[in-house]
Amino acid sequence: MTLPRIAVDAMGGDEGVRVMVEGAALARRQHADFQFLLVGDQPRIEAALENHPGMRGASEILHCDDVVGGDELPSRAMRRAKTTSMGLAVNAVKTGAAGAAVSAGNTGALMAMSKIALRTLPGIDRPALAAIMPTLQAHDVVMLDLGANTEADARNLVQFAVMGAAYSRIVNGFERPVVRLLNIGTEEIKGTEELRDAAAMLTAASARTDGGLALEFDGFVESDKINRGETHVVVTDGFSGNIALKAIEGSARFVTDLLRQAFTSSLRSKVGFLVSRPATELLKHHLDPNNHNGAVFLGLNGVVVKSHGSANAKGVANAVAVAARLLENKLTERIAHDLGALGQDALGRNGKARGDNGSEAAA
Amino acid sequence: MTLPRIAVDAMGGDEGVRVMVEGAALARRQHADFQFLLVGDQPRIEAALENHPGMRGASEILHCDDVVGGDELPSRAMRRAKTTSMGLAVNAVKTGAAGAAVSAGNTGALMAMSKIALRTLPGIDRPALAAIMPTLQAHDVVMLDLGANTEADARNLVQFAVMGAAYSRIVNGFERPVVRLLNIGTEEIKGTEELRDAAAMLTAASARTDGGLALEFDGFVESDKINRGETHVVVTDGFSGNIALKAIEGSARFVTDLLRQAFTSSLRSKVGFLVSRPATELLKHHLDPNNHNGAVFLGLNGVVVKSHGSANAKGVANAVAVAARLLENKLTERIAHDLGALGQDALGRNGKARGDNGSEAAA
Repeated sequence: MTLPRIAVDAMGGDEGVRVMVEGAALARRQHADFQFLLVGDQPRIEAALENHPGMRGASEILHCDDVVGGDELPSRAMRRAKTTSMGLAVNAVKTGAAGAAVSAGNTGALMAMSKIALRTLPGIDRPALAAIMPTLQAHDVVMLDLGANTEADARNLVQFAVMGAAYSRIVNGFERPVVRLLNIGTEEIKGTEELRDAAAMLTAASARTDGGLALEFDGFVESDKINRGETHVVVTDGFSGNIALKAIEGSARFVTDLLRQAFTSSLRSKVGFLVSRPATELLKHHLDPNNHNGAVFLGLNGVVVKSHGSANAKGVANAVAVAARLLENKLTERIAHDLGALGQDALGRNGKARGDNGSEAAA
Repeated sequence: MTLPRIAVDAMGGDEGVRVMVEGAALARRQHADFQFLLVGDQPRIEAALENHPGMRGASEILHCDDVVGGDELPSRAMRRAKTTSMGLAVNAVKTGAAGAAVSAGNTGALMAMSKIALRTLPGIDRPALAAIMPTLQAHDVVMLDLGANTEADARNLVQFAVMGAAYSRIVNGFERPVVRLLNIGTEEIKGTEELRDAAAMLTAASARTDGGLALEFDGFVESDKINRGETHVVVTDGFSGNIALKAIEGSARFVTDLLRQAFTSSLRSKVGFLVSRPATELLKHHLDPNNHNGAVFLGLNGVVVKSHGSANAKGVANAVAVAARLLENKLTERIAHDLGALGQDALGRNGKARGDNGSEAAA
């Protein structure tokens, strides 16, 4: 079977066409069967392709003039779904012209367009934004939701757990990923009612002996343990997830900035730094977001991957590879299957989420 | 005027009596006028005092047999407020036997006992837990609430802003600290209704020309910017604050763990590490929580400082020094004054917090 091609929003991201095309070409160097639908300004895409002759035969160009702005309100961008590179890339997944879409553009607009065009899977009330982060172990940790919704009820959180586990199985190969709910303590009484209800629902579903639920629910996790690697999937609402993700990023940058200050503070430490460069390069590799690029919208009828706005070609290549891997491993079908295995009973409580900042919420 | 003495819960914390007494002694070496009420097991306190002869004349011992357990439910601990070292230390502030209390014990229990014994200041609906964290600048950043309440309405957030600003003025000396609300984006439309309402109230109060509000409200801040130092006070609900604080701690530990792995991975990098040791010591100093120890319960009729459970003597000394500084600078009176200056108008919207996990919430 040939892998369905991947639609790339060539206009999104801080670096634009050149980096998006270079990233796609880089991905194709590792996976020669990748095919692309490059969406955006044809002359600029063609110019970028000149540096990557191998890409010519593997790519079709879908021309459009319009681009979603980085600061544009999602509600505004959505009205131009039929004319923008982002909207057309997502639409290609809907029509089957592509199997997955990758964009480095405005997250909120991409989420909104994807929701409208692809709709949520049966049994999913809300999609979620998931990303992988490095840990002290060999595998990465999956965290969701990172900002698709500002709030989540117990039912949403259970669905996020199922979606995150399916994602973790594909990217990390765990049979039954260890799933925990992000909370401000690990005791059962901690946190909000939504968290305690979701924990009860997941515990009950985990205890079933028919093995229907392909995850191991193990209670709560605090945010200082996210990067330890003992948890494979961290489930939370979009507000807390966004706060945790950015706090982790900011703190890592803070420490490396301090380190840089420290290393350049004296001649002795400058010498030390040069001698230990291989060590600090290893650190840099672990912390470089381009090595963990590609946030995924889970819960939709189709695969949409958000590449970081400031990702370089390597980062874009990673996002493309993630999209291809999720396609190949039938992410969407797996989530649908797992939801069925979970049973409607476990989700029977007709919880209502308290707020949906939806399309404007993603950061 | 003599500084009122400080009640120290000598039994709290992972290390117990020895470290608490050593910490108090260390604080007194820098501030010879400090006086203590040491609460706990008299024989053990006396044994610890033998190493610190100077402390004898500056300390009174209040004996008790009972101790609050580290994992004990706050609701359970509260019933023993009259017999435990923690309860008696807080009660000493209530009766005036001490001016402030310091404990390294169970945070939730300390919060619950303090709330009941000291009650909130007039105009404060809920107290908050505040801590200071290092930044890239010379000053620290104050963040609150860190877990006293799991949720906060707009009115609570405005009160937290006033309390945090008073704290920042005392510990960092800013005339008008820059205050921002923690959110998942900086645009006005981002986040929850509570955040947008609080922003509107603080903007209106900041714009008043009578200069009543001794803070500069500057909108939203994302969690990756907390440690940049551009914001002096970060205001949030207790759930998000706890998530952000622990994510920052965990990420800093993750990076330093990676660094340790990297530095010990080869002989070359080991040599480099030794040569650059002064630089990494500087880093360690910045990140050592003992240099930033002492979370404060703000909004009560009295000063209560929570020392980290695993703090060493230096950390305890810092917590004691923070307590003394807040006493000396009349934190409580300042908050009361600022609330008056804010005016009841700004808080007139009778918002109701959506949940109070109160005494069980603090982590």
